[in-house]
Amino acid sequence: MCTTCGCGSTETVNHQHTSKENATDTADLRLVQLEKDVLGKNKRYAAKNRQYLQQHEIFALNIISSPGSGKTSLLTATIDALKDQLDINVIEGDQSSQLDAERIRNSGAKAIQINTGKGCHLDAHQVGHAIEDLNPADKGVLFIENVGNLVCPAPFDLGEAYKVVMLSVTEGEDKPLKYPDIFYAADLMIINKTDLLPYVDFNMDKCVEYAKQINPNLIIIELSATKGDGLSEWVQWIKAQLTLKAV
Amino acid sequence: MCTTCGCGSTETVNHQHTSKENATDTADLRLVQLEKDVLGKNKRYAAKNRQYLQQHEIFALNIISSPGSGKTSLLTATIDALKDQLDINVIEGDQSSQLDAERIRNSGAKAIQINTGKGCHLDAHQVGHAIEDLNPADKGVLFIENVGNLVCPAPFDLGEAYKVVMLSVTEGEDKPLKYPDIFYAADLMIINKTDLLPYVDFNMDKCVEYAKQINPNLIIIELSATKGDGLSEWVQWIKAQLTLKAV
Repeated sequence: MCTTCGCGSTETVNHQHTSKENATDTADLRLVQLEKDVLGKNKRYAAKNRQYLQQHEIFALNIISSPGSGKTSLLTATIDALKDQLDINVIEGDQSSQLDAERIRNSGAKAIQINTGKGCHLDAHQVGHAIEDLNPADKGVLFIENVGNLVCPAPFDLGEAYKVVMLSVTEGEDKPLKYPDIFYAADLMIINKTDLLPYVDFNMDKCVEYAKQINPNLIIIELSATKGDGLSEWVQWIKAQLTLKAV
Repeated sequence: MCTTCGCGSTETVNHQHTSKENATDTADLRLVQLEKDVLGKNKRYAAKNRQYLQQHEIFALNIISSPGSGKTSLLTATIDALKDQLDINVIEGDQSSQLDAERIRNSGAKAIQINTGKGCHLDAHQVGHAIEDLNPADKGVLFIENVGNLVCPAPFDLGEAYKVVMLSVTEGEDKPLKYPDIFYAADLMIINKTDLLPYVDFNMDKCVEYAKQINPNLIIIELSATKGDGLSEWVQWIKAQLTLKAV
């Protein structure tokens, strides 16, 4: 047993663990404590965001996917469908660039871009300040487009009503098994780019089966954000949530 | 100026920063120190891995992309093309599942799967132990397929000769601007799934321009791992590196 990393290897052909390196075990323990600190701090900010959003009857969705799965395309299509009926605000997360916020503004919604720099996900503190800056109207919708990443956003509550995980058919049906945390944390799964199904090797039944293995309660909507197929189901789902909230 | 997060907001409509929360500034400072500790520890393991690989004349590539860009498909096609000429070993990284290592073994190469659990990238320590377990033959090739993530693997040297970043045409041409760190850290960029170009809105010239803005020295190869177009250029590039090493 390797005591530094806890793995089962009895060989140390490639490297020896020196006493100096073992000292970093303390750093590992501190890292665990810091993860707890960071998540605890995030949880407090998320609670404040949620309280604010609930008080103002703003329906917030935290949308999470790999880079390039089509989050921004889905949002511009959704804004087109709903902007005459609802106040829509968008918080965009990326490591760098203002590209997505510009696309959203061109679609007719208010948007603010958060550049995370080295960061791999949005946190509730960033989102709280973005809400302040957006100052969304009551009874509207707030979309939070997270940094493209299927791993890191999973444990970070932003104060949203629901987490939405998106997967496109070009990515393969096995992603729920390979990145289970986010499929477990999400309430709704969107399978995007269905217009490309004739050109890729993607088994829809298997994808749904794998996702349900991880999270039996996951709601699943198949659509093409760019072509519009299935989009009405997503829009109806949003409207239904707003109605439920109003009851 | 918000002193807790350092942002420019003068409003605290959504939340107040209490003295208790300011205490977590200390945690933030510790986090920066711990990042340095973790990267420093990783660097030492990476140096050992590199020394071992160089001594045994094993050419190692660290392949990084979003989930579903086609890393494993590229590897199975590459193994098909090279397995009769070279000893090929593969280290597979995923949060969960053994799916990719099984696909690689079915292609005729040796493979070991590292499941990172909550982790969002491979580190040099994990890779060092995987090399021990694989015990690759001298003068071969080692592919390291990182966890699908364009953010977190960027600063982690694994001891590889080169980092290879992969982007598929279904993901959009703007990714180098939105996730610059990995395009800056990489030596070679593969633009995959060129067979889908007729069906998606992807500007190849813009993609190359954006990538070169971030990293003017980036070598770029366009290919379709599943259809084979452009694959020979990638295979020839690998062979050329082996020849250069042997000089």
